[in-house]
Amino acid sequence: MTTQQLVSEIKKKKSFLCIGLDVDLNKIPQHLLKEEDPIFAFNKAIIDATHHLCVAYKPNTAFYEAYGLKGWRALEKTINYINEKHPEIFTIADAKRGDIGNTSTMYAKAFFDDLAFDSVTVAPYMGKDSVEPFLAFENKHTILLALTSNQGAFDFQTKEVDGKELYKQVLETSKNWTNSHNLMYVVGATKTEFLSEIRTIIPKSFLLVPGVGAQGGNLEDVCEHGMNENIGLLINSSRGIIYASNDTNFAKSAAEKAKELQKSMEIILNKKSQG
Amino acid sequence: MTTQQLVSEIKKKKSFLCIGLDVDLNKIPQHLLKEEDPIFAFNKAIIDATHHLCVAYKPNTAFYEAYGLKGWRALEKTINYINEKHPEIFTIADAKRGDIGNTSTMYAKAFFDDLAFDSVTVAPYMGKDSVEPFLAFENKHTILLALTSNQGAFDFQTKEVDGKELYKQVLETSKNWTNSHNLMYVVGATKTEFLSEIRTIIPKSFLLVPGVGAQGGNLEDVCEHGMNENIGLLINSSRGIIYASNDTNFAKSAAEKAKELQKSMEIILNKKSQG
Repeated sequence: MTTQQLVSEIKKKKSFLCIGLDVDLNKIPQHLLKEEDPIFAFNKAIIDATHHLCVAYKPNTAFYEAYGLKGWRALEKTINYINEKHPEIFTIADAKRGDIGNTSTMYAKAFFDDLAFDSVTVAPYMGKDSVEPFLAFENKHTILLALTSNQGAFDFQTKEVDGKELYKQVLETSKNWTNSHNLMYVVGATKTEFLSEIRTIIPKSFLLVPGVGAQGGNLEDVCEHGMNENIGLLINSSRGIIYASNDTNFAKSAAEKAKELQKSMEIILNKKSQG
Repeated sequence: MTTQQLVSEIKKKKSFLCIGLDVDLNKIPQHLLKEEDPIFAFNKAIIDATHHLCVAYKPNTAFYEAYGLKGWRALEKTINYINEKHPEIFTIADAKRGDIGNTSTMYAKAFFDDLAFDSVTVAPYMGKDSVEPFLAFENKHTILLALTSNQGAFDFQTKEVDGKELYKQVLETSKNWTNSHNLMYVVGATKTEFLSEIRTIIPKSFLLVPGVGAQGGNLEDVCEHGMNENIGLLINSSRGIIYASNDTNFAKSAAEKAKELQKSMEIILNKKSQG
């Protein structure tokens, strides 16, 4: 999917919501455990109930790998289901991969070719030659960790490197990598005060913003400081939506929570188009 | 496996060799492609031929994920085969994972519980709360990326942070994390000149050292600067061993290459025990 197609979908759906499909068998409605594939059954119900309210789905691979082969199979079924039923939806493999060159190519093949995701999250620690193999895939997007939403972000990411915080060095440096037009960035919503400065470095890039809701980030603040002329934001919510309830009506509850966020986004988008 | 058990195995086998099981279907002997599971067939032959010469096996997960479900199944069969036939061998899931707390716990379950690896490689960018969930597993080992063997290591890892290179900050900081006794570190053999300084920061920790052989690192140099009283080194070789030849004698060729390295290690260990 091209960035322009994503922007069009955002404008059409009046939503820049990404729903995180982080399926924990201890948290899903217990009646689903009788299904042959409870993880996929849960995802399918969530997707059926919410696809008109969001523009992206983001399964975090950890939640699938934890269940071994059956988890990986559920991930495969989930991405195939989205791609077949809702090809207009942007898909993110939240995998936080990264390795030396030839090995990163294998990861890129795993997520872009084998599983046919539109994008994958990648960690920057190993530098240019660990990220460029992902960037080589045209119309696929590499979402680089810049400033994450957790407390540990302050251990290294915000430390000063040559007079500038590490996450800013990551932003600056990555702009010079081959095919950097295929880059997006992860910036946590718990750190909205950083967003304006981030926008001076990467004014045009899309940001994937986790941490709204369960982790305490505020939607209006994120949009005020992070939105650009192309919208440029994908706001992720996982637990706040998919675990809105855990009875037989879980999918309806999830849709209600997604609708609340979509409505807030619609108001913000309308204001912006008038402003 | 405890660190002490690993040290005993090193002394018994006179080897601190780790063999990287990075299976690329384009590189393995083509007669194996007729097998039901060519990846596992290749690994089984390599393991049968080399288990007495090495103390660790390290499959890199990228090479398995690239083949989707059948790749993940081959990874599962490989780790189960090693654990059943050679439980004394230290196993490393070279996965370079790391995520926010509850998600890292899912990765730790994937590799320590579901797949029963002894250790997993983890990226430090997201800080303390992304690594400690791995460290919570007793007698399991978290191998943190410090200074990697690729060119991109110079993009961020060697940049100065508060007057000290980032990789040194990672070493220093991680020492204070809960259960840091379960930490080991990745330090590339292509940067032996850094090893002496690294040893002043983490004198006791085990180092996983990739980059000997194919990437140009020198075994004697690594040992001179990196060995400690517990040996403290696992030297990895992947391509140089497993792709030593690609005819029907590939396993024998791999064993010969492994034997060469083991012999060099034996000489170094003998010198050390006399010295």
